[in-house]
Amino acid sequence: MENGLNDATPTEAAFKLVLLSKSNPVMGCYMFWTSLLVFKMLIMSLLTARQRMKTKTYANPEDLRLSRSTEVRFGDPNVERVRRAHRNDLENVLPFLIMSLVYVASGPNPLTARLLIRIGASARLLHTLVYAVIPVPQPARALAFFTTFAITCFEAGYILICCIKYI
Amino acid sequence: MENGLNDATPTEAAFKLVLLSKSNPVMGCYMFWTSLLVFKMLIMSLLTARQRMKTKTYANPEDLRLSRSTEVRFGDPNVERVRRAHRNDLENVLPFLIMSLVYVASGPNPLTARLLIRIGASARLLHTLVYAVIPVPQPARALAFFTTFAITCFEAGYILICCIKYI
Amino acid sequence: MENGLNDATPTEAAFKLVLLSKSNPVMGCYMFWTSLLVFKMLIMSLLTARQRMKTKTYANPEDLRLSRSTEVRFGDPNVERVRRAHRNDLENVLPFLIMSLVYVASGPNPLTARLLIRIGASARLLHTLVYAVIPVPQPARALAFFTTFAITCFEAGYILICCIKYI
Repeated sequence: MENGLNDATPTEAAFKLVLLSKSNPVMGCYMFWTSLLVFKMLIMSLLTARQRMKTKTYANPEDLRLSRSTEVRFGDPNVERVRRAHRNDLENVLPFLIMSLVYVASGPNPLTARLLIRIGASARLLHTLVYAVIPVPQPARALAFFTTFAITCFEAGYILICCIKYI
Repeated sequence: MENGLNDATPTEAAFKLVLLSKSNPVMGCYMFWTSLLVFKMLIMSLLTARQRMKTKTYANPEDLRLSRSTEVRFGDPNVERVRRAHRNDLENVLPFLIMSLVYVASGPNPLTARLLIRIGASARLLHTLVYAVIPVPQPARALAFFTTFAITCFEAGYILICCIKYI
Repeated sequence: MENGLNDATPTEAAFKLVLLSKSNPVMGCYMFWTSLLVFKMLIMSLLTARQRMKTKTYANPEDLRLSRSTEVRFGDPNVERVRRAHRNDLENVLPFLIMSLVYVASGPNPLTARLLIRIGASARLLHTLVYAVIPVPQPARALAFFTTFAITCFEAGYILICCIKYI
């Protein structure tokens, strides 16, 4: 019933069983939050560009013409903070997205799955806020970081157990 | 009809409805261009290795034996340029690939979807060319960058709107 | 038969044909090894944190309160080694995971596919071991690196050929 099998002709049932399609509410939830996280990650590039312009820290000679800088510079603390936040996204958001897709494909309990996806994605939005937008004293960043970290670990553990026979 | 539903027995129809399979031409298009982009990203590692050998810039003590260098070095401009291009790929190609997969799973208009995938992927191939292979004056790199950037944003916005009910 | 089509009612057959679901043993194998690799990547963050604490190398002013350091530091060789290994994962494991998913979606020979996934993933576990945990003389790291590299290339080439008509 959770998979939408009731009151359906066989063919409709077969279609609804397709876990990785919009007809599965868990997949719909995953798709929504994935879009939000991808959008956030793209904005990191713009934040970096803004800091580069503000501090005139350009890493490529061909970019100098855009402002009136005369040489390439590296290591400005404001630029590096946004770049560290961006790299942290690569290290955590992308594995979270791939892991969650695999988790959705395994047909988990819909309520649990949607809760995990919502909390995991929201924590990453918060992480960017307290890291790159308004630097906040610890443990704000650590808490946001470990929330998504723990959820990704749980999903990985869940799949490891339920797919152990395919090793 | 766009999903290949005409002239099919119910079971065939159910099969063809599976959006994330080779029987869906949009997915076929996505698979082709994903392979090309992954291939390109792998080649970045070889480009970095070539620059490291040419300039004898090795980051690990255990790599020194490969050439006749005596100490680790960092920050060579040629190596760093390829590494920046590679990092830019991680920041943009991987979100583009994940976002496009989700977009394909939502069953978009096939013509639009295939056009977006083709243009988005080609722009990234161009980006690498003008950044890491033959450095070209701006705005060549910026144009290539923002083409894929805009397409990924469009796909994210499309999914955000059509999946808002699963929030 | 390899796709589980024998002895099934039409609807069951349609369901079993769904390549990206746990009912496909190749997908089960992919899911298992993806979880293991994601788990390993997350552990890299903890390894970095351990090195940062051991050498008191913190990159953010707000992290200094956690220990009794008085200023941010960069470029400690032990921290940087783990960070290079982590970045190498981003550059290779994530493309391997995305490429393998697409490869599984194309319905390859099950035996070949499972072998490639197992070897490719194991080589990356080995890579981390000889790079970040116990630094070992070359060519240990190079061999582990090129194993997964070659497998990802093979998968990309396979898809390029079988999807060329969707270009």
